[in-house]
Amino acid sequence: MTTVPDYGPYRPLTTDTVAERLATYVGMAERLGGHPTDWTVREVGDGNLNFVYIVTGPAGSVCVKQALPFVRLVGESWPLPLSRSFYEHAALVRQDKANGSVPEIHHFDGPQALIVMENLTPHVIWRKALIERQRHGAAARIVGEFCAETLFRTSTLALSAEQAKAEIALFAGNTALAKITEDLVFTDPYTNHPMNDFLRPEMDATVAAVWGDPQWRAAIQDLKFAFMSRAEALVHGDLHTGSIMVAHTDAGEDVRVIDPEFAFYGPMGFDLGALTANLLLNYFAQDAWGEQPAVYRDWLAEQIQCFHGTFARRFSELWRSERGGDAFSAALFEERGDKDGIEIALTGFLERVERDALGFAGAKMTRRIIGLAGVADLRGIERREVRATAERRALALARQLVVERGEIHTIGHVIERAERTLRDVS
Amino acid sequence: MTTVPDYGPYRPLTTDTVAERLATYVGMAERLGGHPTDWTVREVGDGNLNFVYIVTGPAGSVCVKQALPFVRLVGESWPLPLSRSFYEHAALVRQDKANGSVPEIHHFDGPQALIVMENLTPHVIWRKALIERQRHGAAARIVGEFCAETLFRTSTLALSAEQAKAEIALFAGNTALAKITEDLVFTDPYTNHPMNDFLRPEMDATVAAVWGDPQWRAAIQDLKFAFMSRAEALVHGDLHTGSIMVAHTDAGEDVRVIDPEFAFYGPMGFDLGALTANLLLNYFAQDAWGEQPAVYRDWLAEQIQCFHGTFARRFSELWRSERGGDAFSAALFEERGDKDGIEIALTGFLERVERDALGFAGAKMTRRIIGLAGVADLRGIERREVRATAERRALALARQLVVERGEIHTIGHVIERAERTLRDVS
Repeated sequence: MTTVPDYGPYRPLTTDTVAERLATYVGMAERLGGHPTDWTVREVGDGNLNFVYIVTGPAGSVCVKQALPFVRLVGESWPLPLSRSFYEHAALVRQDKANGSVPEIHHFDGPQALIVMENLTPHVIWRKALIERQRHGAAARIVGEFCAETLFRTSTLALSAEQAKAEIALFAGNTALAKITEDLVFTDPYTNHPMNDFLRPEMDATVAAVWGDPQWRAAIQDLKFAFMSRAEALVHGDLHTGSIMVAHTDAGEDVRVIDPEFAFYGPMGFDLGALTANLLLNYFAQDAWGEQPAVYRDWLAEQIQCFHGTFARRFSELWRSERGGDAFSAALFEERGDKDGIEIALTGFLERVERDALGFAGAKMTRRIIGLAGVADLRGIERREVRATAERRALALARQLVVERGEIHTIGHVIERAERTLRDVS
Repeated sequence: MTTVPDYGPYRPLTTDTVAERLATYVGMAERLGGHPTDWTVREVGDGNLNFVYIVTGPAGSVCVKQALPFVRLVGESWPLPLSRSFYEHAALVRQDKANGSVPEIHHFDGPQALIVMENLTPHVIWRKALIERQRHGAAARIVGEFCAETLFRTSTLALSAEQAKAEIALFAGNTALAKITEDLVFTDPYTNHPMNDFLRPEMDATVAAVWGDPQWRAAIQDLKFAFMSRAEALVHGDLHTGSIMVAHTDAGEDVRVIDPEFAFYGPMGFDLGALTANLLLNYFAQDAWGEQPAVYRDWLAEQIQCFHGTFARRFSELWRSERGGDAFSAALFEERGDKDGIEIALTGFLERVERDALGFAGAKMTRRIIGLAGVADLRGIERREVRATAERRALALARQLVVERGEIHTIGHVIERAERTLRDVS
């Protein structure tokens, strides 16, 4: 006998019931036009957790995202609270205010764990574009600005400690999603865990070496402790290239950051590290994705440097112009006409964020190779030896980022190490 | 016209009304004996915030602590929420469970912001004992164990991330008390703030040099950011020598940690730094407190090293035996029979806590010399030049602890620097 959980008023939608539900929301009929029976519904969710529908009417279209009370990828055996939809909405509102490069929110239905938002079209997931070697030259810059603005403006650099503590307390409830990261990123890949999913037997020896490396395990747990305890800013929490949508439009490139359901108060370097990791994984995968991989790799290396450079530049601008929070009080610096101390402090602050970012990048790379939920950049490679080589290279760099992050001072040095890895690891 | 704030059912007690209130609490009549009219009430509060009464009856005595809706030291012009009593009680319960060296709680009356607890007798405040050059040789060890056990057992080393997040969210409401620390410890002393209170004119030049030091200000703001963002464990938050009561009893030395109303989730090094700072301030003040100051200073130096040594030893024991939380998961270490990685991790963890502690010690020393609410060890010195010399020496060491904490690796080196300061600064 199966026990059917009681989800209260919550009812999971299907392609057959989405239109009927949408019609109950104020303004939706006008936005889509015509009658609900005229609306077409397509399920397009390719993530691991939720259902996502595109609903199209005569006058327009919207995107509907509904959380399930379990992990879509695994099924009802892995429950996951519907409250993640509340946190996703709360994060989207804050990211929109701080930066703006997110989808427009049309409606939030809390009890249904459902968000109706802008249907981003003709956008594609950046990961897909990268695998196809498309060039969206503005993405790194726009996401760099997204990170700088969302992280700065949700921290005590911009907020009072009291405001920040209220936000920390609010997002502290999103523990179930954080636990996914704690387990899948910082724990399971470092031991012979049944959830792991890597290329066997090609990667057996390399993965066994990871498991057998005490320094790597110690360093990854330092990062896990930082992830769990350092409530510096509202981080997106899952900022990989699948959480970024890109498009060439008549008005130029359009780039949006989506899916912040993992949002929580954490270390600023976490988002920077996540995107860096995913760009580096694509970098190492390029041997599989066409002729002359070096050309696209060079472009990717530029994007990674642009991402970090833009973050530092924009963060520095905000530091100098918008530092109205309780941290690094202007009363001790600008208000006394002193510019030296605050620049010393900025340099130290950015160095620390960058060092954290490198560590988290290494953690995120490793997780995608050894753990559950890999990335298409690597998993999509058909020639197993090509994939294994890419993964061995990525892991070689990941270890350096995690264990030696104190000695790597700039993203330029990371790129140099990535290039060296191409030569040294096969 | 004065507006009288509405404190709801809350009524501040006086020596005349304490007994009547106490009599309404279950069990209190039995504990004190006789009739409430037989009970004597003495107000003994010497802190800056609250009223404290000792109530004595024929059968026993209790200590009654009631918060005021403002800061006692300053008056109604500085409001402070009654909720601090809730947080003090919540912290006492947790510290009692984790360690035990706190007063026994007899009753908590939330609406009255009132805690009835064990009357510690014949205890005295450790600060007073230190000024009188008494030797309570067990205090450093007992408080070292208190820190190790309370910090370890309230962190994700012992708790799940979910449990810790619930605690973080709970204590996140104690912002008003945290703000006192943010302002009085990390901000005001570093600028010409009207709240400052230092020895004029003797300290004018030294204090001006602090204000004019950009590196010191940058480093102190790094520490403030850590104080506000690093939710590592439930820290006492005000662990100076006035928050520790000591007694020689027939059963040996008894030591208790009191007054945790500043409790919050913060960096572990904060409590270690606070006590270290207060012992160092007493160290530098000893020239004023009798003949042969070097003899007592050597004893103090031993106590400081014992405090840090005990903390590290006990923390290491717990690390090896009680690490059941989500951080540094045993699954990656002991459960695979590997002892190397977890010892590497412990060493790194303790080094970081120690480095933080040194920075916070420097911050706490500076605050007591330049800012509001100094310590009797220094303020009680009648000969102004002797006091000024002690304060200059303390500030010279404080700057090293704050700015150069990355280069000072052990508490032994701190003692060496303190001794050098005695020779070099006059």
